[in-house]
Amino acid sequence: MNRRKFLQTSALGAMMTAVSPISFSAYGKSTVKTGTPGRLNLSFAPYELQLKHAFNLAKSQRTTTPDVQVEIEYDGLTGYGEASMPPYLGESVATVTSFLSGLDLNQFNDPFRIEEIHDYMEKVAPGNRAAKAAVDIALHDLMGKIMRQPWYKIWGLDPSKAPCTSFTVSYDANPTEQKAKIEEASPYKVIKVKMGLDHDKELVEAIRRSTDAPICVDANQGWNVKEAALEMCHWLNDRGCLFVEQPMPKDMIDETAWLRERSPLPIIADEFLQRLPDVRRAAQAYDGINIKLMKSTGMHEAYKMAVHAKALGMKVMLGCMTETSCGVTAAAQLSPMADWADLDGNLLIANDRFDGLKIVDGKVTIPDRPGIGVLPLKA
Amino acid sequence: MNRRKFLQTSALGAMMTAVSPISFSAYGKSTVKTGTPGRLNLSFAPYELQLKHAFNLAKSQRTTTPDVQVEIEYDGLTGYGEASMPPYLGESVATVTSFLSGLDLNQFNDPFRIEEIHDYMEKVAPGNRAAKAAVDIALHDLMGKIMRQPWYKIWGLDPSKAPCTSFTVSYDANPTEQKAKIEEASPYKVIKVKMGLDHDKELVEAIRRSTDAPICVDANQGWNVKEAALEMCHWLNDRGCLFVEQPMPKDMIDETAWLRERSPLPIIADEFLQRLPDVRRAAQAYDGINIKLMKSTGMHEAYKMAVHAKALGMKVMLGCMTETSCGVTAAAQLSPMADWADLDGNLLIANDRFDGLKIVDGKVTIPDRPGIGVLPLKA
Repeated sequence: MNRRKFLQTSALGAMMTAVSPISFSAYGKSTVKTGTPGRLNLSFAPYELQLKHAFNLAKSQRTTTPDVQVEIEYDGLTGYGEASMPPYLGESVATVTSFLSGLDLNQFNDPFRIEEIHDYMEKVAPGNRAAKAAVDIALHDLMGKIMRQPWYKIWGLDPSKAPCTSFTVSYDANPTEQKAKIEEASPYKVIKVKMGLDHDKELVEAIRRSTDAPICVDANQGWNVKEAALEMCHWLNDRGCLFVEQPMPKDMIDETAWLRERSPLPIIADEFLQRLPDVRRAAQAYDGINIKLMKSTGMHEAYKMAVHAKALGMKVMLGCMTETSCGVTAAAQLSPMADWADLDGNLLIANDRFDGLKIVDGKVTIPDRPGIGVLPLKA
Repeated sequence: MNRRKFLQTSALGAMMTAVSPISFSAYGKSTVKTGTPGRLNLSFAPYELQLKHAFNLAKSQRTTTPDVQVEIEYDGLTGYGEASMPPYLGESVATVTSFLSGLDLNQFNDPFRIEEIHDYMEKVAPGNRAAKAAVDIALHDLMGKIMRQPWYKIWGLDPSKAPCTSFTVSYDANPTEQKAKIEEASPYKVIKVKMGLDHDKELVEAIRRSTDAPICVDANQGWNVKEAALEMCHWLNDRGCLFVEQPMPKDMIDETAWLRERSPLPIIADEFLQRLPDVRRAAQAYDGINIKLMKSTGMHEAYKMAVHAKALGMKVMLGCMTETSCGVTAAAQLSPMADWADLDGNLLIANDRFDGLKIVDGKVTIPDRPGIGVLPLKA
């Protein structure tokens, strides 16, 4: 009995045949399950994420996030991947499907050729980081399924070291509503607040009236004056905050370095950095980095970013976009390397397509399944 | 049929039963093949490496290298590892067997718990890098065998990017003998010379009379005066050398940084650095690092060192001690990440225990076998 037949008759093999709720054949370069044998067969389909609650940012409100779901079929196995495109990052359904349509993955006979495939994708076009991440995640899912191991094990990580995830609480002018929002976060041990909006201090004070849970602060580049930013860091530190993410605009490097020197709270880079070469630059002004698969082009480079940042003595935060459990669970594989995790993207949507990571007592809990660890939900 | 039975009946399973030429039961905490099921069972035995040619260094000559061979048995699979202890690194058969005797790997139910096991070994005792490397290599062999993949594939590396290995040519006062030594190196595309001895320039000139092959220079901390070192770098650059390894004593950091600023050849750290935290310090005075498994505590940290060094814009050289094909082939898995390789350790010994990497047209060629890729030779 060869490996392939073995897999086909196993529970793992059976799992791979679960149906998808969206049509891939309409968009992909080939239909799943009938791809060229011994080759990588890519297919993909747009999939609009429905947000449970409208998303309030400094200047906008959203009820959906554009997303493209990806499958790579190889020798009877299916690898799942995903590109999520929050509008501020510059990618869209049009750019992602255009990039993926231009890829010829059929030339590759092996998902393990991940560095070659990344080199190839860079040659096809720069940028397109979420589209590249979708391919990378699906390849990791395939590799892990071939090796019958989840990626946290392949990376040698101890899953018990995975941190708690934070859960975002937003401001509400109505005290009863505000209390309900804070109550909704109570299963999570860490609360995240987005700042740079009105009522920043009111929100923190409202949370502190209900709970002593540590608070992560994401300023989203919202503070322009370094002295005021420093004052805010002290104010937040006095109220049990853990760190401040991207306090100042990403171009204000000197001001951020000035703030980092003085702040009692660690200063974490988010918008400032995307990929591996950015980590070293970030070290000059930040105490840590927020790694997100949709910025890093996927898991392969994300792991390297975590290794590099930790070797530089930096803190590692692991984040996500609004995503299905596919992207979030792929990111969770790396979570034992993270000091902090913000992996609530799948909790924010009403139409998840996958079963994946669980939050148990607030802690990121990686499924005991091969690859990225997700099972497609029945349509 | 479960995976274990499948493996036992496969060619891979058959391979694992090949006999070892040395007795492990006399030294190990448990005998191989009868260890606790579902647990890691460590055994080891000293194994003196016989050098084909006496090894001439600045102040000594050697005909053997002390070595300890390690096996970790897990669920019917055997992982091979090795500690090689050239005298100048401070480990010996006594320290390695003492360290390994003090380990209780039986407490671990899984070779994938590699980071936990490294943490545990650090708690048992600091230092002991070669002993830790032996355990790490055997665990990687097991993990790769369980996943049925070689590590270069698990790391996503392209084996065609593996560099040529260098082969060391030493000085001989007899011109006919010198020519024969240079001739012996002709299957290799890159020549390595050790400097800091007498006749450094005569050796390079003798090589250049026979071949235009690029030359790697290892000064072994031999140059004490920075101006003279710079002059030598220019002289070597004019004669087609590639880089200079450890030109000055490891404590002369400022002088090495001064030299690096001015040298036409890259300056590579060897004795200066051992492990991951040393890489960042090395970046201040060196253009690159020489990674060796016996210094890095094995493959897990070696991979991280390569990632970190490349992200810092440094060159990566991959080296070895005098070792059997076990240690050298384990190192070769990482070679596609290296700019230069010096993986001739197994070629220098007369009593190799393994079949492993091959040098084809001078190039490091990684075997297409799972784990670290070695097969024990029959006794």
